[in-house]
Parts: sequence; C-alpha cells; structure tokens
Amino acid sequence: MIYLDNSATTKPYKQVLDSFIKVSEDYYGNPSSLHKIGGQAEKLLQQARSQVSRLLEVKETEILFTSGGTESNNLAIKGIAMAHRERGRHIVTTSIEHASVHNAMVQLESLGYEVTYVKPDSNGFVSAESIQQELRDETILVSVMHVNNEVGTIQPIEEIGMVLKKHPKAFLHVDFVQGIGKVPLNLYNSGVHLATLSGHKFHGLKGTGALFIKEGVMLSPLFSGGNQEWKQRSGTENVAGMVAMAKALRMTIELREEKLDQMKSAMGKLRDGISQIKEITIHTPGENCAPHILNFSIGGLKAETFVHALEEKDIYVSTTSACSSKKKAASKTLLEMGVPAAQAESAIRISLTYSNTAEEAEIAAKAIAETVKHLSEVIKK
Amino acid sequence: MIYLDNSATTKPYKQVLDSFIKVSEDYYGNPSSLHKIGGQAEKLLQQARSQVSRLLEVKETEILFTSGGTESNNLAIKGIAMAHRERGRHIVTTSIEHASVHNAMVQLESLGYEVTYVKPDSNGFVSAESIQQELRDETILVSVMHVNNEVGTIQPIEEIGMVLKKHPKAFLHVDFVQGIGKVPLNLYNSGVHLATLSGHKFHGLKGTGALFIKEGVMLSPLFSGGNQEWKQRSGTENVAGMVAMAKALRMTIELREEKLDQMKSAMGKLRDGISQIKEITIHTPGENCAPHILNFSIGGLKAETFVHALEEKDIYVSTTSACSSKKKAASKTLLEMGVPAAQAESAIRISLTYSNTAEEAEIAAKAIAETVKHLSEVIKK
Repeated sequence: MIYLDNSATTKPYKQVLDSFIKVSEDYYGNPSSLHKIGGQAEKLLQQARSQVSRLLEVKETEILFTSGGTESNNLAIKGIAMAHRERGRHIVTTSIEHASVHNAMVQLESLGYEVTYVKPDSNGFVSAESIQQELRDETILVSVMHVNNEVGTIQPIEEIGMVLKKHPKAFLHVDFVQGIGKVPLNLYNSGVHLATLSGHKFHGLKGTGALFIKEGVMLSPLFSGGNQEWKQRSGTENVAGMVAMAKALRMTIELREEKLDQMKSAMGKLRDGISQIKEITIHTPGENCAPHILNFSIGGLKAETFVHALEEKDIYVSTTSACSSKKKAASKTLLEMGVPAAQAESAIRISLTYSNTAEEAEIAAKAIAETVKHLSEVIKK
Repeated sequence: MIYLDNSATTKPYKQVLDSFIKVSEDYYGNPSSLHKIGGQAEKLLQQARSQVSRLLEVKETEILFTSGGTESNNLAIKGIAMAHRERGRHIVTTSIEHASVHNAMVQLESLGYEVTYVKPDSNGFVSAESIQQELRDETILVSVMHVNNEVGTIQPIEEIGMVLKKHPKAFLHVDFVQGIGKVPLNLYNSGVHLATLSGHKFHGLKGTGALFIKEGVMLSPLFSGGNQEWKQRSGTENVAGMVAMAKALRMTIELREEKLDQMKSAMGKLRDGISQIKEITIHTPGENCAPHILNFSIGGLKAETFVHALEEKDIYVSTTSACSSKKKAASKTLLEMGVPAAQAESAIRISLTYSNTAEEAEIAAKAIAETVKHLSEVIKK
C-alpha cells in the first residue's frame, strides 16, 4: 500500500499507541480527583503539556488541550468573538480557510458579526498588505491558516503579525494544522495569539488537539463546566490521548531532522513525473510551499473516478480536503485562485509524510500517468 | 487496591482497549475520505453508532458522537438555546446539576437568557410538579439530570416528560451520565429529546461521548466545519474511540444482568457498616437511588484529610464530584438539600461498579470506621 493522503489523516506511530495503552491501563484516574490515582493522571497530563509547550517554544500555561483541530479552530474564533464582542464585531479571514474556520465565521455572521474574506492571488498566497487593507478599528480577530490544506501554500504569518502590531486590538489566530512538524513557525516571533493543532495529522490519535493561547488572551469557553484547562475548556481531560499527542509531536519534529530530505526527494520525483503528463496541470507553486502537499488537475477526468482507479493499484490520494470530499464540489481554494471550474472539479491532492520514499513516489507517478491515459481512453470510446 | 470512585472515572475494560488499538492500527483512515481506507473507517463508525442506538433503543440517526459528557451537555443546552432563541429565552433546570450543565446555564444568563433553578427536596429529589410550576410560554428547554452524581438520587424523568407533553415548545434534556448502564431509562417513553452519555464513566475511554438527539430536534452546533455527525458536530470522527465506547456500553449493560445483585450486595454491606459509625450521617436516601452511589458526612472531620487517610489503606473514594473536588468547597447538592454547611463540607462519595465485591465493601467499611476513629482522636489531642 502507498498511502499518500496524510493531510486527511495519518497512521498513529506504534510508540504513540503503546503510550496510549500504558496510560489508559495504569493511569486511568480522573486528573481532578484528590487521591493519588487522580494525582498520577494529573502529573502525566502536566508532563504532556510541558512537552508540547517546549516543542512549540511557548509557556506551559499557554497550551490548552482539546478534542482536535475543529474544536481548536471553533474555540479560538467563537471564543474571541464572544468574549470581545463589546470591543468590536469585525473579523478578517481568507477565502481559502479550512471548513472549520470558514463555517465558524459563517455562524458568527448569523449572530451579527461582520466577516471580511480576503482572496489569495492566483498562486494561492494571501499577502500581508491585503489583510492590512481590511483592518478597522472594530476588527477583533484576524484568522489566517499557515499552510493551505489543499494546495500547500505557506501564508506570510510573520508579516501579518508585523502588520497587526499596529492594530493591538485585533488578535491573530493561525490554523497551524497542516504546517506543524513540516514547516517551522515561531509563534512568539510571528505575533500569533492563538494557534490550532490536530493530533491525528502528525501520527497522533483522532480526538486529540491543542490550542496555543498567548498569555493574557481571554476567551469565552465553548465547554463550560468543571473549569479544567485554565477554565477555558471544561471536561475530564483525555490524559492518554494527550500523552500520545505530545509523543507524536516530538517524534514528528525529530523525524523532520532525519527525513525531510527524503520527503523532499519523494516530492521531487512526484512533481517531475506528474509534470510530464500533458493532461495534468499542477496548481501547487514551486516555491513557498509546504514540502508534503501537491495539488493538480487531471484535465476533464472525474476526480472521484481517478481516486478509485488509483485505489485499485493500492495507492491512496484525495480529491479536495477530506472534510469536503464527499460533497464532490470543486476545490474552494482553486476556485478562489481563479482556476477554471472544470479544472477545480478535477483536482487531486497528494500529501506525504516522513515515511514516504522516493521509490513510492516513482511508483505513484507512473501509476498516475497510466491511470490518466487509461481513463482518457475510456472517455474517448 | 479498592477503587470506589467510579463516578469520577472508570478503568477501561481490557477488550475496549483491544478494540481501540485494532481500529487505530488497521483502520486509521479518515471516515470522510473517498477511498477505501476512509470507507473502512466510515463503516466501523456506522457500526458503532448502530450498536449504541440499539442499546439505547433509539434510531441510528439520533446518535451523535462527541468528545464526552461535558461537550454533550454544552452542545445540548447551548445548541438548543442558540437555535431556538427567537421562540423564547427561558430555561428550567435544577440547582443540583453537574457543573457542565450549571455553568452552561450561567454562561447563557450572561447572554441574556433567563434560567430558573428548581431546588430539590431534603432527600435530593426534584418533583415533576416543581418543574411544572416554572414552565412558561417562552420556556424552550428543561434540563434535569437522571441520577445525581453526588448523592445518587434518581429524578422522575418519566413524570417530567409527561408534564412536558403539555408544553410542546420546551425540549427535555437529560444528563444521563451517571445513570446509563446502572439505572434503566427508556428515552422514547420518557419524552426525552436530548440525553448525554460519557464513555469513560462506563469503562470506555476518556475523550468519548454521545448525545441522543430525537429526530426533528434542531441544534446550533458548537463545532462548525466539515459537517460530520449530521452537520451538528464537525470534526474528524474519533473512530477508534467510538468503537471502544460502543463496546464498553454493550459490556456494561450485559454486566448489569450478571452483576447487579453483587453490586447491590456490596452497597448493602457498605451502608450497613457505615451506618453503625456514630460520627457518620448518610445522605443518600434508602429508596429511589442508583445502586452505585453512597454519600455521607464524617462529622467535623476534613473530607480531604479523610480521602488521603483512606488512600494510605489503598482505598480510593471522593469528596464531591471529581470536577469540583479541587475547589474544596462544600457539596452543592447537599447544601441545596438543606444539609448544614459543616456536614456538606465533610461529605464523602463512594461510587461502585460491577466488579466491586461484597468483600471489598466489608474491608472498606471497616477501614472507614477505623479512619473516622483515628482522625477523631487526632483532632481531640
């Protein structure tokens, strides 16, 4: 099997699962309990938090554990919107955010907030200037993704952070889900106030995530209750899941050192192979992109048919983002980049991880070429 | 070790962990992915949902998976409040709900909703009549817990459901967290519209939960995004966690058949033993209570000191609910029942599960007697 859909989800590392089991079996206490069964669980949770904070180079008190990227994005956006609504009700974001950011914005619009959606250029980049132009006195939040989940473009978070230094009333939220472990981003230096992580995107477990919340930033919680997680996210903590996530993050960041060149080499082979197929248009720019995502259109072929045809060869790729793939709609990001609808409807995303090899890439590129040829012939018949 | 804090959290069943690992290793796909790696995960998720729905005797489409009890309670309460705010902004609940219900209500009050908190009687029961008296034309939601988490009283959900039949504009939400698997409740017959489950309370995993939402009931989601879970709870589904939860629920309901008498016998031994200690006042009534919870005060002794003293004997009990135990405040439920503050501050909760035996109960009752005696002597010195 050649699994090339790592932006949808990743296989948990063996060691991550081992940790999960160990904690679930031997340290199953409720961290809020006063007795030592609870105390042991609390200590493990604190160690996981400490580890994540060290890996992100932030403070332990700035890491809040959640159930995943969607929760973190919703908590950041709605939490800021609700807590600071007396200061202003205007939000700036981009038109190419993940559904969990975009639909949180739409929900806020229905509650009386005004949202400006900044478009990317034709390569999929949003400029700091285009964000700056939309800022107002009543802007309370700017939410921009780090690495686009569909085409892999890296947005200029540091420059946007610089712009926001002149607008101290607006918080900066970054959807860091696709970038973490793949493309470094220093949260402090970039002036980021909130950043979203999702455990299952870096070989942790589904149902685990985190939100970086810079010291002093106040949110209105989505989950009220027992006041766990600095009173901003109540609920019994998923201790084993968080220990597993911390381990997955450490391993991924370590693997980056060791395997980044291998992944880049695999991506190079894929891009080289695919660019020779005349029916294919590559949408991921050659520069300022994450090393693991490649997006292309396969002419007039149906993307879903193509995914299933590759599946027959035991190769797994995606149409658009996983969350949107069943809608069978055209890629939102590509449409916003100005890609014609016919192409946006036949878009394919390949997403790698550090275990993918150049050999797998060569096999995949060859299979893609064969599949395009075969499907094109079928259509002509 | 004698673990008697099963209302705080339970140890996951071995088979539940085995299922979690199997799914995480072999079926790690994103259920939203179009290819078969995603399809396999989707199928497992659907099977888990089907199993939970059969166990609750409701429809598959009425089960929504969440990250736990706190999320389910918040989603039910805020989701109804936000979606139906044009119809009315009055909510009725009780003054003895879990923090995740109570604090969601407080948050809604800050947003302009009016909440009526119905008090229990001196035994910890809320009557259907006392709920009925507070209903108004603009009441959109009634939220009453099934089994009280601190004292174990069973609230008359079926009677409250009958009352609400004459108020079709008000939805009935039930926090079913402590009752499920211990005290049967037929959701359909009781007229329940929403019911909260938490996986780790019945030997499933932390970070897993469910919300029963009766067909036709509309919520405003807390998590917007990829429109998973009937568009009411976005986010990549924790497939392995949900498979594990479904299994834990099945096993718990099966164990009830087999072990309820054993647990009742253990509770009987505990109650008998403890009631002979003159310093102790038992707060859990002898009737209409869940079989697994016993709440009592230990005179003027400090509850926290008592918990730690029992811990020395490898016996684990709780002060109040786990979520509130670190606040070291008096038990809210006891205060609302009219128990004097000094007693409410020295409250201890014992909570059993089906593996607890009469032998453990005898050892624990003896240890409690010795500890009360010892601590009382220390104080006198």
